[in-house]
Amino acid sequence: MAKKKKANKTGNSHIAIGVDLGGTSLMAAVVAPDGTILGECKRKTKAELGAVAVTERIAQAITKALKQAGLAEEDVVGVGVGVPGPLDPETGIVSRCPNLGASWSGFPLAQTLEKLLQMPVTIDNDVRVGAVGEHTFGAGRNTQDMIAIFVGTGLGGGIILDGKLRRGFRHSAGEVGHMVLLADGPVCSCLERGHAEALASRTAIEREVLEMVSNGQDSVVTALMHEEGRSAMSAGILGRAMEANDPVVTQAVEHAQYYLGLLISACVNCLDPEAIVVGGGVLERFGDAYLEPVRQVAQQHYINQVDAERVRIVRAELGDHSGALGAAILAQRGLGGRSRTKTV
Amino acid sequence: MAKKKKANKTGNSHIAIGVDLGGTSLMAAVVAPDGTILGECKRKTKAELGAVAVTERIAQAITKALKQAGLAEEDVVGVGVGVPGPLDPETGIVSRCPNLGASWSGFPLAQTLEKLLQMPVTIDNDVRVGAVGEHTFGAGRNTQDMIAIFVGTGLGGGIILDGKLRRGFRHSAGEVGHMVLLADGPVCSCLERGHAEALASRTAIEREVLEMVSNGQDSVVTALMHEEGRSAMSAGILGRAMEANDPVVTQAVEHAQYYLGLLISACVNCLDPEAIVVGGGVLERFGDAYLEPVRQVAQQHYINQVDAERVRIVRAELGDHSGALGAAILAQRGLGGRSRTKTV
Repeated sequence: MAKKKKANKTGNSHIAIGVDLGGTSLMAAVVAPDGTILGECKRKTKAELGAVAVTERIAQAITKALKQAGLAEEDVVGVGVGVPGPLDPETGIVSRCPNLGASWSGFPLAQTLEKLLQMPVTIDNDVRVGAVGEHTFGAGRNTQDMIAIFVGTGLGGGIILDGKLRRGFRHSAGEVGHMVLLADGPVCSCLERGHAEALASRTAIEREVLEMVSNGQDSVVTALMHEEGRSAMSAGILGRAMEANDPVVTQAVEHAQYYLGLLISACVNCLDPEAIVVGGGVLERFGDAYLEPVRQVAQQHYINQVDAERVRIVRAELGDHSGALGAAILAQRGLGGRSRTKTV
Repeated sequence: MAKKKKANKTGNSHIAIGVDLGGTSLMAAVVAPDGTILGECKRKTKAELGAVAVTERIAQAITKALKQAGLAEEDVVGVGVGVPGPLDPETGIVSRCPNLGASWSGFPLAQTLEKLLQMPVTIDNDVRVGAVGEHTFGAGRNTQDMIAIFVGTGLGGGIILDGKLRRGFRHSAGEVGHMVLLADGPVCSCLERGHAEALASRTAIEREVLEMVSNGQDSVVTALMHEEGRSAMSAGILGRAMEANDPVVTQAVEHAQYYLGLLISACVNCLDPEAIVVGGGVLERFGDAYLEPVRQVAQQHYINQVDAERVRIVRAELGDHSGALGAAILAQRGLGGRSRTKTV
């Protein structure tokens, strides 16, 4: 796990800054080569201000994090940013960010931030960046091949093979949330049916709970949502309902676990990696116990049953920091940006 | 497409022998570095004789193919064998071959064949070897990343990423036939439900046709099977039924095409390759027309719709020779065997 401490001002040559840009908040972290966080700054994204203003907020957060670390801009090799949407790491241009608004479509984030900071900037997808973080400093360290799956509002992934992040021919590798598991199943956020995201995300659990409640089944979630003043079923509310042995939520969670197991089996049968690292809001709330039934379903569907338990299915370790750490690693390695492609 | 011609006896330094070992027949081919087949020998496998005798038959076929090429054993760098079952390329030991019998379980094929031939022998899975053939000399040439899917009695695959064959942590990568597409769907050969092989293979088409016939629907297949004296629904029979506009076979084939499209979309969303190369008995019989509805379903499920048509979904080009050519490439490159691993 990454620790936070003051920089010693020596051996700074590969210190880099990682930024995790989210729809609600953004975080900038100054990261040493060993994963130590030397300084960090978290602030609201304020997406309503638009792409240019948010980029300025990123630059301000970076400046604050550097100050906390006792470092100047010339002490770091560059900045990596994890962005919640498709983008082109080679040009540094964001394709679109549904959670951040229309001003991000075609926005040259790397170039804009470079002008503000006078530092090289590398961008990549937030989920892939999280996978790089977990691979380097988290649950996937010491593996050559791993697949990270983040389960939250959506379901995203990042694939590391032979120690390298797989970006793909069109920069869209790792979209495991859109692998079909139940043809003609429930509608996904992408409007097609039966994808993993529509079956195993927090949103999928929420949809199933709402269906059961609207069919007249009793659940404590309605009261809990009212109590917490929320219109969406957060992982926290689902967790409280599970702890209260709510039968509706329990059933919906079991279904999501089943489909997550099937998704993992599909990934393992396809790529045969060393480890599957599972993170995201749902795992943060439910903990390792969430994975036990997932492992059983997954292993049952492996075509190669030999050494099935050697393929580790483990919980992510870096929590909120996986994105910022992974983004800093991209910057440290000077890859993924507009100079070189495909490898990290 | 590989051509067949006599060796010119010069520049033989990377000539290799590729063997495609099947349940019914085996083929040995002497292959020049440019893919030219200099000599070949095809003969019955006679699996009932057991692993040792079949290995002797492989050695005899190799000797005949060399004679046809006008070459001696010292003119070739080694032998590659594609084997229909799981195995360990590092030890050269076959794990099992359901189509060849129990004597293959744990059989040291590479070592046994090396003793008979006094040449280095490399072994790998037949489907992965076919993928290497298509990548080097077939429909996937000039790509860095491609996935080969072979649709026949079963449904197998081979994955090439960054120009290298992906073998996987437990040597079982590429088993795309066992990716779940319809949770709780029909039972697969592996006894789990809803895998691609249970939905998109020739066997899946056969199962659905039989179900419809036993439910009282009329189909010409019954008469065709009787006419050809067959107990199984070969791709040839299915093709004749399609040409006769048989509604039962047409429906079953359309379902198989739909699920093949879903499988391809899952692979593309996961790995974002440049090309998907589809081969095997069903494609050999039905031709390129088989792929048109497959492409439509696949593209509809891509999460990245940008440049969707740049991901080529094409028919394999090497037909029966993909395995022998791919196996020869393994031997030419001197990889995949017990000296080095993972890369081709």
